[in-house]
Amino acid sequence: MAVVVRNIRRADAGSVAAFGDYGVATVHEAQGRTGVMQPYMRPIWPGARIAGSAATVLAHPNDNWMLHVVMELCRPGDIIVVALSSPNTNGMFGDLLAESAMAQGVQGLVIDAGVRDVASLQEMGFPVWSRAISAQGTIKATPGSVNVPVVCAGARVTPGDVIVADDDGVVVVPRTKAAEVAEKSRQREASEASKREYFKSGKLGLDLYEMRGKLADAGLVYVDSLDDLEG
Amino acid sequence: MAVVVRNIRRADAGSVAAFGDYGVATVHEAQGRTGVMQPYMRPIWPGARIAGSAATVLAHPNDNWMLHVVMELCRPGDIIVVALSSPNTNGMFGDLLAESAMAQGVQGLVIDAGVRDVASLQEMGFPVWSRAISAQGTIKATPGSVNVPVVCAGARVTPGDVIVADDDGVVVVPRTKAAEVAEKSRQREASEASKREYFKSGKLGLDLYEMRGKLADAGLVYVDSLDDLEG
Amino acid sequence: MAVVVRNIRRADAGSVAAFGDYGVATVHEAQGRTGVMQPYMRPIWPGARIAGSAATVLAHPNDNWMLHVVMELCRPGDIIVVALSSPNTNGMFGDLLAESAMAQGVQGLVIDAGVRDVASLQEMGFPVWSRAISAQGTIKATPGSVNVPVVCAGARVTPGDVIVADDDGVVVVPRTKAAEVAEKSRQREASEASKREYFKSGKLGLDLYEMRGKLADAGLVYVDSLDDLEG
Amino acid sequence: MAVVVRNIRRADAGSVAAFGDYGVATVHEAQGRTGVMQPYMRPIWPGARIAGSAATVLAHPNDNWMLHVVMELCRPGDIIVVALSSPNTNGMFGDLLAESAMAQGVQGLVIDAGVRDVASLQEMGFPVWSRAISAQGTIKATPGSVNVPVVCAGARVTPGDVIVADDDGVVVVPRTKAAEVAEKSRQREASEASKREYFKSGKLGLDLYEMRGKLADAGLVYVDSLDDLEG
Amino acid sequence: MAVVVRNIRRADAGSVAAFGDYGVATVHEAQGRTGVMQPYMRPIWPGARIAGSAATVLAHPNDNWMLHVVMELCRPGDIIVVALSSPNTNGMFGDLLAESAMAQGVQGLVIDAGVRDVASLQEMGFPVWSRAISAQGTIKATPGSVNVPVVCAGARVTPGDVIVADDDGVVVVPRTKAAEVAEKSRQREASEASKREYFKSGKLGLDLYEMRGKLADAGLVYVDSLDDLEG
Amino acid sequence: MAVVVRNIRRADAGSVAAFGDYGVATVHEAQGRTGVMQPYMRPIWPGARIAGSAATVLAHPNDNWMLHVVMELCRPGDIIVVALSSPNTNGMFGDLLAESAMAQGVQGLVIDAGVRDVASLQEMGFPVWSRAISAQGTIKATPGSVNVPVVCAGARVTPGDVIVADDDGVVVVPRTKAAEVAEKSRQREASEASKREYFKSGKLGLDLYEMRGKLADAGLVYVDSLDDLEG
Repeated sequence: MAVVVRNIRRADAGSVAAFGDYGVATVHEAQGRTGVMQPYMRPIWPGARIAGSAATVLAHPNDNWMLHVVMELCRPGDIIVVALSSPNTNGMFGDLLAESAMAQGVQGLVIDAGVRDVASLQEMGFPVWSRAISAQGTIKATPGSVNVPVVCAGARVTPGDVIVADDDGVVVVPRTKAAEVAEKSRQREASEASKREYFKSGKLGLDLYEMRGKLADAGLVYVDSLDDLEG
Repeated sequence: MAVVVRNIRRADAGSVAAFGDYGVATVHEAQGRTGVMQPYMRPIWPGARIAGSAATVLAHPNDNWMLHVVMELCRPGDIIVVALSSPNTNGMFGDLLAESAMAQGVQGLVIDAGVRDVASLQEMGFPVWSRAISAQGTIKATPGSVNVPVVCAGARVTPGDVIVADDDGVVVVPRTKAAEVAEKSRQREASEASKREYFKSGKLGLDLYEMRGKLADAGLVYVDSLDDLEG
Repeated sequence: MAVVVRNIRRADAGSVAAFGDYGVATVHEAQGRTGVMQPYMRPIWPGARIAGSAATVLAHPNDNWMLHVVMELCRPGDIIVVALSSPNTNGMFGDLLAESAMAQGVQGLVIDAGVRDVASLQEMGFPVWSRAISAQGTIKATPGSVNVPVVCAGARVTPGDVIVADDDGVVVVPRTKAAEVAEKSRQREASEASKREYFKSGKLGLDLYEMRGKLADAGLVYVDSLDDLEG
Repeated sequence: MAVVVRNIRRADAGSVAAFGDYGVATVHEAQGRTGVMQPYMRPIWPGARIAGSAATVLAHPNDNWMLHVVMELCRPGDIIVVALSSPNTNGMFGDLLAESAMAQGVQGLVIDAGVRDVASLQEMGFPVWSRAISAQGTIKATPGSVNVPVVCAGARVTPGDVIVADDDGVVVVPRTKAAEVAEKSRQREASEASKREYFKSGKLGLDLYEMRGKLADAGLVYVDSLDDLEG
Repeated sequence: MAVVVRNIRRADAGSVAAFGDYGVATVHEAQGRTGVMQPYMRPIWPGARIAGSAATVLAHPNDNWMLHVVMELCRPGDIIVVALSSPNTNGMFGDLLAESAMAQGVQGLVIDAGVRDVASLQEMGFPVWSRAISAQGTIKATPGSVNVPVVCAGARVTPGDVIVADDDGVVVVPRTKAAEVAEKSRQREASEASKREYFKSGKLGLDLYEMRGKLADAGLVYVDSLDDLEG
Repeated sequence: MAVVVRNIRRADAGSVAAFGDYGVATVHEAQGRTGVMQPYMRPIWPGARIAGSAATVLAHPNDNWMLHVVMELCRPGDIIVVALSSPNTNGMFGDLLAESAMAQGVQGLVIDAGVRDVASLQEMGFPVWSRAISAQGTIKATPGSVNVPVVCAGARVTPGDVIVADDDGVVVVPRTKAAEVAEKSRQREASEASKREYFKSGKLGLDLYEMRGKLADAGLVYVDSLDDLEG
């Protein structure tokens, strides 16, 4: 039950790198509006933006032992994703573990629990998306697992999946679809640029997307004033 | 049931402009401690402060179609207020819609749901007060209504009411009382300035508001030390 | 039931001052992982860090009368801690009360309710940790108590206990243990500095804390790949 | 601000009585899926089902004074609806007030706060829908209002509106639409009976509602097995 | 830090027994509206009602080891009160532990965490008030403490305090005040009986408590109809 | 993206039937304390207990179209499991759909959203575990998927997995491990029976599990009275 998987397959480096250019909202749209973690996962400081390969941890409430175990299995660029066997907000990660993670080349942390030393983490430039900020420390008593499939904040993460995180939250891209989703993200981004110019000029989405007929078909009615409704 | 009201009455421009000088706390006190939205409505970036006339939207969960509809009915200075028919946190609004809103002169957005592209929105200087930040995108399948009375985050909003929003949250001023509440806000602000000097000098509210007698009448007792309580 | 205690014992000034050097996480570890308030207690602006002696208030929902009463009993450096008789998020404290508190030398506020005027409070440099930000004002109708033992956000606070607060939250140190906990915090801080160098060099916690054997004893198993699990 | 309205218009007795035959789900569908209170409003004991005219109360947190005021304005069959000026869960209503309400002929209570003495209330057969059950008592210090329009658990209630409540929750029918909604509820109920027989026979909604074509048009694809997806 | 206190002082048996006649709401009023636990503490089955002396446990999230330790220190009639060092909803207690508790004469359990086997517990007639129902099991890895003062669901509990629990929730009576509070509860109960008759006859609280003048003094205004407000 | 899988592999009937004898807590322990859904999943009426093969649905908020689609793919004994693409509490399922499900032989429903007509569902004897009870109806506008792997209330469910649900909540047993987990559940149940007798006799878990030494090793200290702690 408590198992560590030493070797995982990662998405090809090119695909992972490509995600560095796209936001979480774009990527999740590009893969059919899937893979977004629950919105309670928030960055501990604003402006961070990362994309990388997931090293996963399944930990127990109030126990951060596995965070030491995952370190030696990370490669530069990896993002550590911590799921919990049941909900807890204790501060399982702080500046010492961040120092260790940065030394291994880890880009950042996504954790469905609490973190602490957040002022230090911001100074160090180590980005974290978490469920909570909490000074409450944890123990090292029960082994969990490393690099097994997990459910983190409502999203399935298989080791080696691509994680993209920014101020909007966190999205997971399955490893096997990374190249395809990266390409679709590129297309979407390009298309958005031209739409943005269109809107900037004052023209309306009603016309761009030819919505007027569809809205009427769906039953939308226009009246001149509120009095027409109540009369 | 799905209806768009083209024309609404707005508060007179002078009253609306006057609210630009007062904070949300002041305005809600000036109208008898009413009209504040639930405190879960938070600004997506700090420091924004707006006052304007409400254009309202009633949308369904996971559906942002009506946000395109409201755009052509907005006038410069309006604030879009989005209520939901049942709770949802999906990201119904992002940078494309913000571009469109800014092109129509919309000042900002108050939405009882999620928004996304928050880093871009901050760069663009478009202020939003929302229930959540979420990358999760939405569909355009079911018409809602525009410019009808709504309940947003616990507060009633009639189209044309004045919305004031700052770092403390959001307050709604009924259109018909805008002039009166603006005047009372002015008076309150003036009175607060002198109180502030009083407190700055180290004098106490106990004396300024002559509370000592009232507290004694209400049964408040002073003792010298905790030991007196337990003895 | 409604009682004000005039005189309280405070921790010796030296111990209190010492806590200014340590973070909340360090202090709570130094006293055996106890005393941390619930993680919903968040600073209203980032970067503040205070340590001081607690003046306590027990208030009723929607009633901030006692905040005026506590002011004249505070000494420079004190921190006001407000507990509620039942949960409420209304804005019980704003810039006027902050002006009064600063004039008495109060360092900051910890309140299990809402605050308002948060933009002003940040300008004034008055730090607050609260359950909520809310413009909703309160009344002055029912006396509570001042300088009695309270439960604030899940933590017991006796008047004169030491409060330490930073971006990680709030911790309470019993007055009678202040000197001992300050000393243990100093030791912990020193020990962390050397560990930090160790991790920075790329070495692992697995080795520093000699965890490999303990993990094996606890049943942790290593496999080469996910296929080994499913085979 | 604190005002009691003595006389209100009620829906005609026939319409109100008609609602006694329909469930909350049926009624809210009959009026276009509107008027349902938030799902946190739960009955304190199962099986109760009431329909009646709303007498409204706007109360402040921790203060149940207005519940005494509303009593003498109730007529037999009325339902008391209590909204709060800001959220609170204290027990504002118990068996003494229930005794008083029953003596006035009040049918039941809908309250966006807490109640207590719930075992007694069940023995007495007095039904309540509330946000919480809490023994925490309240004070009588600040007047609120009676028989003014309120927002209760997210729904607008005007005095004299029809309230229908059962194990599914609470719905509000505007007084002016009571007759029309009662008639539509009757039709809906009749139509459901025949559908129920249809389903009981093992036939499918896919066919009854002719959904197969619409689903295909909307992009739904059938495959034989999961392997077809991953291949 | 992990300590078990073998001997505690209990309230005299007569006082404890007296509480068997009074509800939680009555008792908390009798001691000045204090001591009620948060309303999320709910009975796992309806109708249970207990009063007894508290044996306390301080446990860590996901760890129920101390529940075995407390058993041999309980005396017949005791109620076990379990506080957690940080929030968790796992099922720390089930039918095996209930069998053990009943064999020691324990009356019931109050736990700020989850329980399981709730159908069995109801069959056995063992009453529990808990934060959650959860099948999720826990470990036995970290010692907590037994019979030390704790904060449980927001209320302070010292070993030997009297716990009263019913369908309204849980209240704590300090051991040293048990006799006094029991007597006040008796008086209150007697006074309520006569009030109940008064209300049953159709007379009003407005008159019984002579509220009309006080309400007018506090600013309450009566109008004849809603039109008078808006006119 | 919107796909229906016609054929799924189910666990062998014998294993599924075996689970009918064991509670959720037993089963989740038997598979290493995994697979329990979040504790917010509660039965809508007490006493139901089911075990069967999962037919899965992935639906969008406010849209119950797929519940009609899944019906014709269910076999007698199946349990429908509904996951949502983002959180929502609307009532997606009521007595008409229950009639249809029962006609297909479906045993029950597990849904990470709301249900309605709960009084009827109880009369019909159709068991449901849900996140909420809500009368709020939904639309049929956007296709989701049927019989694909989903995450429901935090637990992964693959079509054909075994679902066991009772008053303690819901647990998922992977199809490929059903026989093994059923056997381990049987062993566990047997072992619990003898432990139960042991506890009934008044003997302690401390002795049965030989915990005294382990507790001492882990640092647990016994003292005679609270005074020994504070001395």
